[in-house]
Amino acid sequence: MKVGRRSYRTIWIAGDGWSVEIIDQRRLPHVFTTLRLSGLAEAAEAIRTMAVRGAPLIGATAAYGMCLALRADASDAGVAEAYATLLATRPTAVNLRWALDEMATLVRQLPPERRVEAAYRRAAEICDEDVAINQAIGDHGLKLIEAAWEAKARGSRVNVLTHCNAGWLATVDWGTALAPVYKAHDAGIPVHVWADETRPRNQGASLTAWELGRHGVPHTVIVDNAGGHLMQRGLVDLCLVGTDRTSRAGDVCNKIGTYLKALAARDCGVPFYVALPGPTIDWTIRNGLRGIPIEERSADEVTTISGRDPQGRIVSVALTPEGSSAANYAFDVTPARLVTALVTERGTCAASEDGLGALYPERAAG
Amino acid sequence: MKVGRRSYRTIWIAGDGWSVEIIDQRRLPHVFTTLRLSGLAEAAEAIRTMAVRGAPLIGATAAYGMCLALRADASDAGVAEAYATLLATRPTAVNLRWALDEMATLVRQLPPERRVEAAYRRAAEICDEDVAINQAIGDHGLKLIEAAWEAKARGSRVNVLTHCNAGWLATVDWGTALAPVYKAHDAGIPVHVWADETRPRNQGASLTAWELGRHGVPHTVIVDNAGGHLMQRGLVDLCLVGTDRTSRAGDVCNKIGTYLKALAARDCGVPFYVALPGPTIDWTIRNGLRGIPIEERSADEVTTISGRDPQGRIVSVALTPEGSSAANYAFDVTPARLVTALVTERGTCAASEDGLGALYPERAAG
Repeated sequence: MKVGRRSYRTIWIAGDGWSVEIIDQRRLPHVFTTLRLSGLAEAAEAIRTMAVRGAPLIGATAAYGMCLALRADASDAGVAEAYATLLATRPTAVNLRWALDEMATLVRQLPPERRVEAAYRRAAEICDEDVAINQAIGDHGLKLIEAAWEAKARGSRVNVLTHCNAGWLATVDWGTALAPVYKAHDAGIPVHVWADETRPRNQGASLTAWELGRHGVPHTVIVDNAGGHLMQRGLVDLCLVGTDRTSRAGDVCNKIGTYLKALAARDCGVPFYVALPGPTIDWTIRNGLRGIPIEERSADEVTTISGRDPQGRIVSVALTPEGSSAANYAFDVTPARLVTALVTERGTCAASEDGLGALYPERAAG
Repeated sequence: MKVGRRSYRTIWIAGDGWSVEIIDQRRLPHVFTTLRLSGLAEAAEAIRTMAVRGAPLIGATAAYGMCLALRADASDAGVAEAYATLLATRPTAVNLRWALDEMATLVRQLPPERRVEAAYRRAAEICDEDVAINQAIGDHGLKLIEAAWEAKARGSRVNVLTHCNAGWLATVDWGTALAPVYKAHDAGIPVHVWADETRPRNQGASLTAWELGRHGVPHTVIVDNAGGHLMQRGLVDLCLVGTDRTSRAGDVCNKIGTYLKALAARDCGVPFYVALPGPTIDWTIRNGLRGIPIEERSADEVTTISGRDPQGRIVSVALTPEGSSAANYAFDVTPARLVTALVTERGTCAASEDGLGALYPERAAG
């Protein structure tokens, strides 16, 4: 999508033809800067420290991390080390394992001297596939936004509430939950986004607000506490969020706090949609609450926050008293019963085993 | 309660016998400092800028604000001006109007020369009444915490989730929602508090964590997004929150985000209790969602946050991109159907017109 006049993806091959460039999302929304990754350790570090984040982009970065690793060591041992190192960076997003499996399976079938080239080719495909998936999600989700607008007799703007960042910054391009928003905006539908700030890392206030603003989509940042009130007052027409991993029965693991918004949507009669790229479905898990591991991150993300001081410097400030501890669960699971529908690249379906099975028969049977 | 070795209330008469001292809560948890109020304007400013906050403490400060005003002008016009100025400071807390009505009704019955002394006497009574109310709420709520501990066969700590600050800093002393916690802790029950940080003003991370820490109560700060996940995982035994205004039917207006926690509690089978001093009941309103005005505060509270920088200075930092707007609703309404019980100074009751009517027959009939 656009940043100023230039179109960007979130990850691309640098001018040297082999190193990998990313947008350093830790410095947004205050500073737009890119980072160059030249080896396995840098790729793993970029994922772990969340210079890149968002399930699809994590997968894409891991794929390129495997490429960088193979340049240094294309042996079976090298593949195994890269696989283990990259898999250990983040525990929740299923795309990470999916992308690494794709890469490792491919290169292991080849002699070491052919692995690097094949890996780069497959990593590029994974990126292009992600873009195609998101555009398809955008087209399917656009119909939901359009229907909400029609239901208001086109008389006023359509208010979409989203949580965290499932925009183009979370993917290679377009985004998952925000792809329909961009498509609607581009189609002239007056869409407005309530962006949950999404503590503790504030991806909504920093990334979602930033990317919507750069594209010109009207939006308002709210604290995570506010969504229920807005829904009670009829100020939300639909909720649209992403997911890091979804069970085969439609339980949705997404950024902590998603479950609370789904409860409010149910209580207030607001549709709650989840944008769901196929690779984020975990076909090995049925019960998301029991089966999906929830990452616990550093308490520092809760006890401190970073922002732009009056001099324009990015500084971290402490929020809690000395001596108070904090806990930091990164995700929660929204049970399928609270999800109105899943919006996939193959169409919209019920959040259920039957719903997903009808769209992905080849996987559901597995 | 204790701060270091010394016992404090949140508001008291200074050594000069007439000016009013308060704890400046805007600087907590980083700096503990007191402020002296010498006139109507300063009292109104303290309420408006949230140097004092919390429904009961707002009421107490307004009462003393009336005293300070009468020292300058004890005429009927002076009473009217003080009443209007103080009432305009915050729109939601019903205690504000209640305390001002108490004061104005009293002094209007007296000749101007007797008003100042009577006003100071009544303001002191309002403070003492608040302390007595909170101690009674503490005793009644203690039984609920005790029962939760017994239900666990005293085998592990009792986990209480609270939102915002309804501790002693929100009242004259003891607090409403935290009074039972202090009573339980002092009685040797191993109680642990999950303190929602409570954006946008972070009263949980700053005030609740600070006052629990000073009193030695184990606690963990969490982001507002986390409570649902904790309840899903069985890590919360009960929720206990305060209220700024409650309708006669038991609809609870409290800090924005309370409604989301009540929804999660209902979904997970966790009891959701609201600590409710009699003066916060608005007997003129039945339907809280329709009747209670919701204060909208400055967007700056969402787009910026203040904290302690590495050099120990309190600085405000920007969280959102330039050009992104924000909305800031301060409260929401939790419908009575989601409230397990109300804990008042007269006992525990159902969140309903019948429940409140049985405890406050003299008001319910009015």
